[in-house]
Amino acid sequence: MSSKSVASLYFPNEPKEPTVVASHAKSDAEKAQIGKVFDNRGIYFVADYEKSQGNYIADVDGNVYLDVYAQIASIPLGYNNPALIETAKSDKMIRAIVDRPATGNFPGADINEIIGEILKVAPKGQDKVWSGLSGADANELAFKAAFFWYQAKKRGYNTQFSQEELDSVMKNEAPGSPDLAILSFERGFHGRLFASGSTTCSKPIHKLDMPSFKWPKAEFPSYKYPLDKYTEENKKEDERCLKIVDDIIANNKIPVAAVLIEPIQSEGGDNHASAEFFQGLRDITLKHGSLLIVDEVQTGVGATGIMWAHERFNLQPPPDLVTFSKKFQSAGYFFHDPEIIPNFAYRQFNTWCGDPARMILAGAIGQEVVKHDLVKRTAEVGDYLYSKLEKLAEKYPSYIRDLRGKNRGTFIAWSLENSEARNKFLSDMKTVGVNIGGCADDSVRLRPTLIFEEKHADILVAAIDKLLSTY
Amino acid sequence: MSSKSVASLYFPNEPKEPTVVASHAKSDAEKAQIGKVFDNRGIYFVADYEKSQGNYIADVDGNVYLDVYAQIASIPLGYNNPALIETAKSDKMIRAIVDRPATGNFPGADINEIIGEILKVAPKGQDKVWSGLSGADANELAFKAAFFWYQAKKRGYNTQFSQEELDSVMKNEAPGSPDLAILSFERGFHGRLFASGSTTCSKPIHKLDMPSFKWPKAEFPSYKYPLDKYTEENKKEDERCLKIVDDIIANNKIPVAAVLIEPIQSEGGDNHASAEFFQGLRDITLKHGSLLIVDEVQTGVGATGIMWAHERFNLQPPPDLVTFSKKFQSAGYFFHDPEIIPNFAYRQFNTWCGDPARMILAGAIGQEVVKHDLVKRTAEVGDYLYSKLEKLAEKYPSYIRDLRGKNRGTFIAWSLENSEARNKFLSDMKTVGVNIGGCADDSVRLRPTLIFEEKHADILVAAIDKLLSTY
Repeated sequence: MSSKSVASLYFPNEPKEPTVVASHAKSDAEKAQIGKVFDNRGIYFVADYEKSQGNYIADVDGNVYLDVYAQIASIPLGYNNPALIETAKSDKMIRAIVDRPATGNFPGADINEIIGEILKVAPKGQDKVWSGLSGADANELAFKAAFFWYQAKKRGYNTQFSQEELDSVMKNEAPGSPDLAILSFERGFHGRLFASGSTTCSKPIHKLDMPSFKWPKAEFPSYKYPLDKYTEENKKEDERCLKIVDDIIANNKIPVAAVLIEPIQSEGGDNHASAEFFQGLRDITLKHGSLLIVDEVQTGVGATGIMWAHERFNLQPPPDLVTFSKKFQSAGYFFHDPEIIPNFAYRQFNTWCGDPARMILAGAIGQEVVKHDLVKRTAEVGDYLYSKLEKLAEKYPSYIRDLRGKNRGTFIAWSLENSEARNKFLSDMKTVGVNIGGCADDSVRLRPTLIFEEKHADILVAAIDKLLSTY
Repeated sequence: MSSKSVASLYFPNEPKEPTVVASHAKSDAEKAQIGKVFDNRGIYFVADYEKSQGNYIADVDGNVYLDVYAQIASIPLGYNNPALIETAKSDKMIRAIVDRPATGNFPGADINEIIGEILKVAPKGQDKVWSGLSGADANELAFKAAFFWYQAKKRGYNTQFSQEELDSVMKNEAPGSPDLAILSFERGFHGRLFASGSTTCSKPIHKLDMPSFKWPKAEFPSYKYPLDKYTEENKKEDERCLKIVDDIIANNKIPVAAVLIEPIQSEGGDNHASAEFFQGLRDITLKHGSLLIVDEVQTGVGATGIMWAHERFNLQPPPDLVTFSKKFQSAGYFFHDPEIIPNFAYRQFNTWCGDPARMILAGAIGQEVVKHDLVKRTAEVGDYLYSKLEKLAEKYPSYIRDLRGKNRGTFIAWSLENSEARNKFLSDMKTVGVNIGGCADDSVRLRPTLIFEEKHADILVAAIDKLLSTY
């Protein structure tokens, strides 16, 4: 285990431990005020970002929590990271903020450098990028690319559209607007807009009352834990689920242009699947002429102990599109096949085509991650934390069930008995100084920053122990 | 006419005129480089934003163009505006960049102030906001709000979902995922994601090969010009088009939850309609229990000589939702009815719920617009420019047809004979030092900044005259 503390390097004054003042009066008052102009019902607390440091988030009442949720898995290098503050103060950033370009028409002279920094940490085999604004946006842009590709393949990459296509599309009718599907997985989460929402399948609240595309869902493997005890059962589960995918693509009424999957189903409960399952999926997409889109919105940028979680599967050939957002503070998709670039201009296009300000930040995040070897450190810290949680699971078996994320960095989760027990646990953790989040209905997910270290893991484990000892 | 030059105040060194070096070698070379990592086919030129000032955009070859396109109508206060640079350098902005919050869960203590600044310039009658990331995103978020509202109204605002709804939505089936429609207009543009794309109806290239929702389109009035000559004909056109809307909502197979319209159809050709038409539309939506969503993505924030273009119609009651983006450098929708807030938490939600960095900028833009009375100035400059263009239209009637935008600030457009003539004109304007954009197939649209003044109008008019004299 390395003794290097990048957290101390960045944050010499990072708090040594949480502060719990146990009052939420100011936060509650401000939350009520916010309700007058904005939907405030999801607010846990009103934060004081000026006083937040590294792995610690402060609220307006003076509570300072160890944050293992990190803005729903999206803060990469800690609050008020000095390297990113330098980036935010740079002339390049200021221009990107003030002179936001329509990047598809009038990119700035620095766009190659900005994209180049992002590509330095791209998944292996991916050498191009298209930029978007959020995880949902990134996924929908990837869907567009997949549909364009699928139809161009049928029509001929350089073949012009027919008059019938040009006319019918303006009426939202085939053949110009064809019925094509994205196949996704039960328990998957890919966003909450209409097409991304049609692929999301983790909780009803994400999509109730929204019209949807009638796109199919396959089953994601449900493994038995601990994994090393149930090797055979889990292998059969892989085979069962792959067969479902194969059958759907072969028989679905609407052609499946692409299969969309998370390397680890994150919002849906930290559900893992094997490298064999993913390679099987890759093989099936090749067999049927569908694309493979890997959604790395939550898993990407190091938290699983590898830069991009799907790289662990060493897929051959690599996925056709890989979407990103969250910890990259920017969004879009990586790809490598030139034919994923739409066959004509102005097909994948919009006013801003991303946000260079956020892309500059992504490049800086990538640089810091590489410079401080944070992916390796996160793998080490994750192993340390996992082994401590394993012991805690022995002590509190009904509160720490199906511990998941072994050898997956700090991307760790476990289940409780039910939704009520889980929600109480999440809420109670604030009383011992930790801000922590859930996934699925009954699970807890750890999503700390990439500078979460052994000392923070110790505080987290002690806090869980302290709380569970009172249950 | 005011003689105040806010442009000179902001930009003492703004170029006095364009510089045309007539070479594009560097720009072409950089464009080719960009093609290795990004789709480069929409690139007009590679810009040098460091050297761009006020109303002038520089390219990497040293050409300096008067910019009346302004990043597809999205630069509000000129390139490198010093007031916005101050905002970009502020601690508040730096924190918003570096510590991007999940605003729905952990808003910063300054969120009320940030939203408050935006609401200071909100459309009359609108006192709440929900934040998004782009015009397409803003519209789709508004669709979600409309669908939630529509179903909650049927179900009862506080009634829980049925088990059948909870089960069916996970299969993308009714009743949990109902068939509901947004009614939009032919020639309208509302974005290029899947639901927004289903409402967009200006050019096939925006949506070919994309699956779509089978949502209906009504006809937007097609007026005869000049308007004062064809009052009766245009009134009949209003009535004809309103009847179509009324019939569609009454008879459409899929219930119409909301009607979506631009105050001026912008991408689709700068098509105008009367206040009577818009009030008629408001009345029809009330009659049928549908919402009215006004898409101010391109028309909003002053360019039409009023802060929000639909305010000119003085609609009673005001629209239910008003979407914004572009010149506000931020995105989202305004609303006023508390029942537009979804009846349960986590329905309108996503990781970031907008971007406070861009929202801070929107507030600063609003402040500057008010401080310098830029809406009134834009109205004045627009009248000045329009009258000059009217004279030019007499001189070159086949190149300046159907001049549109009288008393609509600088939001001015005209048509040419056909697409080829228009494209040649747009391209040739660079040879006389002007960066200018098109709309529809055959039209030119002026979309300068809000600090475009009489002196800039003179340069623009002289450049057009110079070019057309060679045709």
